Amino acid sequence: MSIITLTTDFGIQDAYAGAMKGVILSINPSAAIIDITHRVDPQDLEQAAYIIKSFYHYFPEGSIHVVVVDPGVGSDREIILLKTKGHTFIAPNNGVLTLIMDAEKTDSLFRADNPDYFLKPVSRTFHGRDIFAPVAAYISKGVAPDLIGTAFDNRSLVRLNMKAACISHTGELVGHVVSIDRFGNLITNISSDVLKNFCAKGTKAPVIMIGGARINGLSITYESVDAQTPLAITGSSGYLEISVNRGSAERFFNAKKNDIVRVST
Amino acid sequence: MSIITLTTDFGIQDAYAGAMKGVILSINPSAAIIDITHRVDPQDLEQAAYIIKSFYHYFPEGSIHVVVVDPGVGSDREIILLKTKGHTFIAPNNGVLTLIMDAEKTDSLFRADNPDYFLKPVSRTFHGRDIFAPVAAYISKGVAPDLIGTAFDNRSLVRLNMKAACISHTGELVGHVVSIDRFGNLITNISSDVLKNFCAKGTKAPVIMIGGARINGLSITYESVDAQTPLAITGSSGYLEISVNRGSAERFFNAKKNDIVRVST
Amino acid sequence: MSIITLTTDFGIQDAYAGAMKGVILSINPSAAIIDITHRVDPQDLEQAAYIIKSFYHYFPEGSIHVVVVDPGVGSDREIILLKTKGHTFIAPNNGVLTLIMDAEKTDSLFRADNPDYFLKPVSRTFHGRDIFAPVAAYISKGVAPDLIGTAFDNRSLVRLNMKAACISHTGELVGHVVSIDRFGNLITNISSDVLKNFCAKGTKAPVIMIGGARINGLSITYESVDAQTPLAITGSSGYLEISVNRGSAERFFNAKKNDIVRVST
Repeated sequence: MSIITLTTDFGIQDAYAGAMKGVILSINPSAAIIDITHRVDPQDLEQAAYIIKSFYHYFPEGSIHVVVVDPGVGSDREIILLKTKGHTFIAPNNGVLTLIMDAEKTDSLFRADNPDYFLKPVSRTFHGRDIFAPVAAYISKGVAPDLIGTAFDNRSLVRLNMKAACISHTGELVGHVVSIDRFGNLITNISSDVLKNFCAKGTKAPVIMIGGARINGLSITYESVDAQTPLAITGSSGYLEISVNRGSAERFFNAKKNDIVRVST
Repeated sequence: MSIITLTTDFGIQDAYAGAMKGVILSINPSAAIIDITHRVDPQDLEQAAYIIKSFYHYFPEGSIHVVVVDPGVGSDREIILLKTKGHTFIAPNNGVLTLIMDAEKTDSLFRADNPDYFLKPVSRTFHGRDIFAPVAAYISKGVAPDLIGTAFDNRSLVRLNMKAACISHTGELVGHVVSIDRFGNLITNISSDVLKNFCAKGTKAPVIMIGGARINGLSITYESVDAQTPLAITGSSGYLEISVNRGSAERFFNAKKNDIVRVST
Repeated sequence: MSIITLTTDFGIQDAYAGAMKGVILSINPSAAIIDITHRVDPQDLEQAAYIIKSFYHYFPEGSIHVVVVDPGVGSDREIILLKTKGHTFIAPNNGVLTLIMDAEKTDSLFRADNPDYFLKPVSRTFHGRDIFAPVAAYISKGVAPDLIGTAFDNRSLVRLNMKAACISHTGELVGHVVSIDRFGNLITNISSDVLKNFCAKGTKAPVIMIGGARINGLSITYESVDAQTPLAITGSSGYLEISVNRGSAERFFNAKKNDIVRVST
């Protein structure tokens, strides 16, 4: 059974994802379609990039990951088929795969441009249904990517210019909030590796700062602090997170995406 | 593998859809259950009618589409089994299938009234679980509709009195906003055919009006206009839509469902 | 095909549930993963307890139900495997299964503590992905619970101290609102059995009171009263509910979870 995952910003109130599922099952009735999320913030490529990186490697090799966060739909942006570590990604060439490209060697790369594998007629506003879905279905049936598209040059891949965590002139490690989850956890762009290296050079326990507030040290678990107390922790996707035990850091700090987070030692 | 799609207004915070899935899998463990949406606006039959029309034909023939938008649950409204073009719809006889009936020839029509195929006891408030789900599951196993119900007269089908787009006494094409999607696109009830006919008779490029605003001409893609600029476009489900490139027409025009949209040429 | 249901408070905007699905399918590619809800109110164990009780028995025997509402993740709370009536529940030992334990005889009970069946490394913040998901997948493949864990004493099970409906000193039956569904129906903790017993002892038709309002008698269907009129009814999950026909009791009564509901006869 072939696995096809869906990550989109379509929301769940309309039939957009439903239509994609119909197209896939019409071509490959035995595909297992797995909803990851349809609630990426509309057209938020950076958020989507972090989401994709956080889940794909938990799926078995051979899985096909369809990513439709596509503000340029209908323009001449390409649709790419990127294979890495046994996983195939189908996504617009708009940088949404930046973190995958940065972390992994690309095994093959094609531009999906053979209309034989598209739905007809192709609309100009819903390539998720008319191109991404049928292409995913044909790949899940074993059609070779080089039939569906033409080889694409790595150097033509669009990359997001994502602000990386960096060291300020005062010697602090500075990142920002990339995403806020349903529990109000603030997920930053400071990876555990970067954090570890930074802390290793310091002489004191790290202090994490957001807004005017300071959190002393890193916690191992949420329960390491009292209820309703803020903490900093390396989260499950490998980035520094700011949380409130049995509460919401979003509400506690009145935090928003892109808020600055600083670490000093 | 039999495909059963679910379109309801149950929302996703409770176990209503989950209970339906359990009932289906208890009867047919190999059914592939596909969520279309559980976020139809509560009891909004017109919106549901447009949603159903927009996705079903992308599914393979033999698919079974369960529609539970059912304000009359527990009353004596019928539950119907309508077959058209190889697809079976299970829905309350409340007009939610109006656009299917208008567009397609009905191949067979039954009233689901044989309690042998219902869950027992049948509640008076949740027929989705107690009637729709088991009936869908039995049909997916090949039970003939005439065992599950009795033939039903086409003329007894309830139709929604949906305001169609029409020509005003000033010669404008007048429709309204039927649905607003997550991107803030305003989907109207003006079909591309009606629009094309209307425009063919005019002598000038169409002007699309909403509130006090005017949009000149139809765009081919969202990207045909600058970012944050409104446009009119034939959307992916075949109706005139008003959008804002990389923005939200809902916010731009402060628009609501049922807002009037006019076209002049 | 093995059925694994997911009930969590993760929300649907992140990839948390998606990562769990990947882990499950990596271990058992033929598992049928069924979303019940990911929208339990964050860390609301009582609400989760009612949800689980309301859906699980509609699934076929042999189903595996994963419940991740887990404010104590990463602490030393246990993760339990509870089998009853042919269903296996995987949940934190935090009381979320209280209503299952109260209603059914436990057939077997284990603590999932064999790391051979966990993902490595086990994070301290996301046991849903690292423990619950792989354990569910291995059970779905037929691995015996006594390989995955050690026998656990019934008396060590945490139970929620859920306020039961009770009789006040003035002779009224007093409960509260446990959950509010998408239609604005107010679901109480007054079970139909308790209500029936209470009413049987009375001499008059029951009067249901919420806030300062009174509803006379129980309705059989929503449509038993006029549109926009409140009613009391035994809901589909076997508890007293307060509804408004074709409207929302939540808005009508400006009601909230935990609001008191009283019945007199």
